[in-house]
Amino acid sequence: MTSTRAPELATLLVSCPDRRGIVAALAQLLYGHGANILDSDQHTDPIEQQFFQRIRFDLSELITDRGTLERALAEVAERFQMNYRLLYAARPKRVALFVSKYEHCLYDLLLRHRAGELSCEIPVIVSNHPDLERAAREFGIPFVVVENTAATRAAAESREHALLKEHDVDVVVLARYMQVLSADFISRWEGRIINIHHSFLPAFVGGRPYHQAYERGVKLIGATAHYATAVLDEGPIIEQDVVRASHRDSVEDLVRKGRDLEKFVLARALRWHINDRVLIYGNKTVVFD
Amino acid sequence: MTSTRAPELATLLVSCPDRRGIVAALAQLLYGHGANILDSDQHTDPIEQQFFQRIRFDLSELITDRGTLERALAEVAERFQMNYRLLYAARPKRVALFVSKYEHCLYDLLLRHRAGELSCEIPVIVSNHPDLERAAREFGIPFVVVENTAATRAAAESREHALLKEHDVDVVVLARYMQVLSADFISRWEGRIINIHHSFLPAFVGGRPYHQAYERGVKLIGATAHYATAVLDEGPIIEQDVVRASHRDSVEDLVRKGRDLEKFVLARALRWHINDRVLIYGNKTVVFD
Amino acid sequence: MTSTRAPELATLLVSCPDRRGIVAALAQLLYGHGANILDSDQHTDPIEQQFFQRIRFDLSELITDRGTLERALAEVAERFQMNYRLLYAARPKRVALFVSKYEHCLYDLLLRHRAGELSCEIPVIVSNHPDLERAAREFGIPFVVVENTAATRAAAESREHALLKEHDVDVVVLARYMQVLSADFISRWEGRIINIHHSFLPAFVGGRPYHQAYERGVKLIGATAHYATAVLDEGPIIEQDVVRASHRDSVEDLVRKGRDLEKFVLARALRWHINDRVLIYGNKTVVFD
Amino acid sequence: MTSTRAPELATLLVSCPDRRGIVAALAQLLYGHGANILDSDQHTDPIEQQFFQRIRFDLSELITDRGTLERALAEVAERFQMNYRLLYAARPKRVALFVSKYEHCLYDLLLRHRAGELSCEIPVIVSNHPDLERAAREFGIPFVVVENTAATRAAAESREHALLKEHDVDVVVLARYMQVLSADFISRWEGRIINIHHSFLPAFVGGRPYHQAYERGVKLIGATAHYATAVLDEGPIIEQDVVRASHRDSVEDLVRKGRDLEKFVLARALRWHINDRVLIYGNKTVVFD
Repeated sequence: MTSTRAPELATLLVSCPDRRGIVAALAQLLYGHGANILDSDQHTDPIEQQFFQRIRFDLSELITDRGTLERALAEVAERFQMNYRLLYAARPKRVALFVSKYEHCLYDLLLRHRAGELSCEIPVIVSNHPDLERAAREFGIPFVVVENTAATRAAAESREHALLKEHDVDVVVLARYMQVLSADFISRWEGRIINIHHSFLPAFVGGRPYHQAYERGVKLIGATAHYATAVLDEGPIIEQDVVRASHRDSVEDLVRKGRDLEKFVLARALRWHINDRVLIYGNKTVVFD
Repeated sequence: MTSTRAPELATLLVSCPDRRGIVAALAQLLYGHGANILDSDQHTDPIEQQFFQRIRFDLSELITDRGTLERALAEVAERFQMNYRLLYAARPKRVALFVSKYEHCLYDLLLRHRAGELSCEIPVIVSNHPDLERAAREFGIPFVVVENTAATRAAAESREHALLKEHDVDVVVLARYMQVLSADFISRWEGRIINIHHSFLPAFVGGRPYHQAYERGVKLIGATAHYATAVLDEGPIIEQDVVRASHRDSVEDLVRKGRDLEKFVLARALRWHINDRVLIYGNKTVVFD
Repeated sequence: MTSTRAPELATLLVSCPDRRGIVAALAQLLYGHGANILDSDQHTDPIEQQFFQRIRFDLSELITDRGTLERALAEVAERFQMNYRLLYAARPKRVALFVSKYEHCLYDLLLRHRAGELSCEIPVIVSNHPDLERAAREFGIPFVVVENTAATRAAAESREHALLKEHDVDVVVLARYMQVLSADFISRWEGRIINIHHSFLPAFVGGRPYHQAYERGVKLIGATAHYATAVLDEGPIIEQDVVRASHRDSVEDLVRKGRDLEKFVLARALRWHINDRVLIYGNKTVVFD
Repeated sequence: MTSTRAPELATLLVSCPDRRGIVAALAQLLYGHGANILDSDQHTDPIEQQFFQRIRFDLSELITDRGTLERALAEVAERFQMNYRLLYAARPKRVALFVSKYEHCLYDLLLRHRAGELSCEIPVIVSNHPDLERAAREFGIPFVVVENTAATRAAAESREHALLKEHDVDVVVLARYMQVLSADFISRWEGRIINIHHSFLPAFVGGRPYHQAYERGVKLIGATAHYATAVLDEGPIIEQDVVRASHRDSVEDLVRKGRDLEKFVLARALRWHINDRVLIYGNKTVVFD
């Protein structure tokens, strides 16, 4: 219900063992504090007996205050053994882009951000090459070169980690960042690094997937956005898409077609992540789109 | 939460003016009677200020009884000016198929039904031609020929209406039924007749849409499943899809490609309807898929 | 150019090492004998330096005769080291369907055949189970049960081979035939057995691909039609397609969605094969669609 | 066949009344002059009895010269009443982009151009607003503001026409240019102005198509690239595509989803045009893709 005050939106993401009464408990809790539910989506995994819910609500007519609401929520969460996150829209996510030499994903995200498609802040772009500095400058975003090779990885990642802290970053996007991250780095940012892989995973893991696709003679090529995990190309999948290919397509044609896929799939995955629509469980995702 | 008793599923479909507290009121009501919410989906139209919700729940551990629950629901509904439908899964929808000479949609629906994809009963097939009787017989479904021309329409529709009553039909599917229905017949079955139109509406309304598409040189052809209304091809759209076409496609090729679209789109629309996933408002639909 | 006589269509499929003058030689050859080219499509693989062409032409105004044309063609073929096939439309391909217990692909092909979408003959349906006999009978096609287990494979395949010879079969379609064929059987029918695999190959090779897809949490599921080779699921791919999946889809939902994919993809692959649009080279296909 | 000399590519586009011997005549002509056919595609419209062909060939080992080849071609063309265009790859098309305030199509084309996806030159960007000058400057392309209102149209178009002549422009792309062109301007550039319309034509012609789509409640939205003609939104369609929409999409969501469609569809249409893959006939196109 549209209120006369400016809305103060928040999102609650919940997962817990499935049992009776969860939906009612949360609805009652929010209503009791004067929060108005705008949108709610829910899923139960019947095999894992796991419950998931996303609730978006308006706090502008709260009859208590946020602290009270948060304490009440903590109590309900304990009762139902919930993992939960409560996110206030007034504090948009802060996204760091990691890039190398390819500009297509970087421009795509920056243009979408400028067009208002991505409700986030982009405080910093990190690259292991200086090539894309000009693009960053054009959009007025700090661009930091951190050289990163097998030999210098530890120092480089330490520098990157410090940069992310300094810029208060919530999520890292590997926008065709052509450098493997250490298991340690990934575990520190677990569930907060989104990578774009240029194949329809689990087909063509590893390097040069377009070459692999060409060799195998597939009739569709794909791209996959997923959370990075220690095992390369094995993380929870957020989004995938494909486009038709044929015998007429050279590897270069596949690369060209793939660029469009990579842009789309990565942008969609990031959009869902920053809108708090993605829940990880096990090695899968629930996407409330 | 999976109960030890056999589940007794029900679905509640609600639409009403948007206001604060609807979600909590329904969740509390169901929980208070011992109904367990399995799935809930919700939508608010911010322009029309209209609220929509679909809740699926299990009644097997109800602590009152259905009559009590229904009375309590009626009270809540009155308070919020709700339109609502409460549907028990134990009573699947009864679907009448209207056909003429084309067999593709008929076979598609009958095969899907036999494969368990469509949770409904199909007590009768009505046709204005005898051609498809054999298909009906093969699937063991009564087949009734009702000749229907402009001259005999009133009598024919009266006969059809009686058949639908006799077979306790909930929804009529026009599976490429090549006969215009009267406004009177349609209004008696308002929101309960699903038609498949062989174009991407609103492009190519009226007759011979594949010929129209060929003439216009479009690069995609489509199909549209919609609720029938008095104005031909103008009813609320449930589902649409398209497939690529090119200069190489003759009208016959478009017809062939279109058959697949028609089957898919109609089957998906029917599936959503019988699973109580579609709400009509104004000339649009909300599809909780 | 439409002739006044009834057209006598033929198709020439050619592959050879790429060199100058091939197109002109074939066009000149056909024109010189009075054959009228209706359609021609061509492809050069720049890496393998291999040339491929499909020419469809009308023989109704031939100024020599077929024997003369065939001898002239043999001469040109020798000059250019061509592999080629010359196929007369008056002799449609003869297709054997191998099935087990799933009816969806079988019905789909039989209904498409009856609708005139597949220009072939279907002289026999072979199954390792009696379940689908009724469907075969309904369409008036001989149905032969050949039990086939690991123990009886040699005898069974010998019987199958004899059946294919007896019915003068050109191509075998494994329409969800749930039995592994021996390398020997496959090599005797090399390039003439089309299989439908229920995943987007090379993802999820082997058994239970829908279960594998569910476990991995992919956001699209696929199907692949390919020529059978001795190495399971590794043959040349003819066609592939995908459909969206989500966390809401159980394995059963994936199976249901996959059935539609399997039908489509297999029907398209068969259609291209019987219309002489597919050329195999190495482990890939050229599809002149 | 790959030659040892650097290839000198050319494309021949032909349309003429269908008759016997066209393919052989052209193949013989090219071969006789030492041109090597790399690729050829052909189509016959059986209803209009019209023949279309696209031949790409290499002139690097021509045994005569271009003038001789062109004269021989003119003779063959006269014999068969051909319309034809002979295009040398060494002279890429020169494309003018017309824009207004939306940047998404402009950036998309400029980035694709920089990535080597579009084999053309972009000598000038014309706009009726100064807003996008910065983007043009970033890519180093002259940006000319030509104010254009109903009152000043004649003068403005005269200025635009002069600019196109001055920059030796071959094709004009209306990349969300929000200004109607006069019938006179269009007729001077007939078949050489590509427009992107933000709907699946012929649905939702005219203004505000996303609003129209929202009102109608369609389940897919589309975009259409077409050649501009005097009658708005009625020109020959080059390419179309769609994306799913639902009741959850506001007009703003449709606009956002549509931007991606517009970019893709326009880029694909332009790519085909500059690669000489599009033939207009009547109000349709043949696209040799």
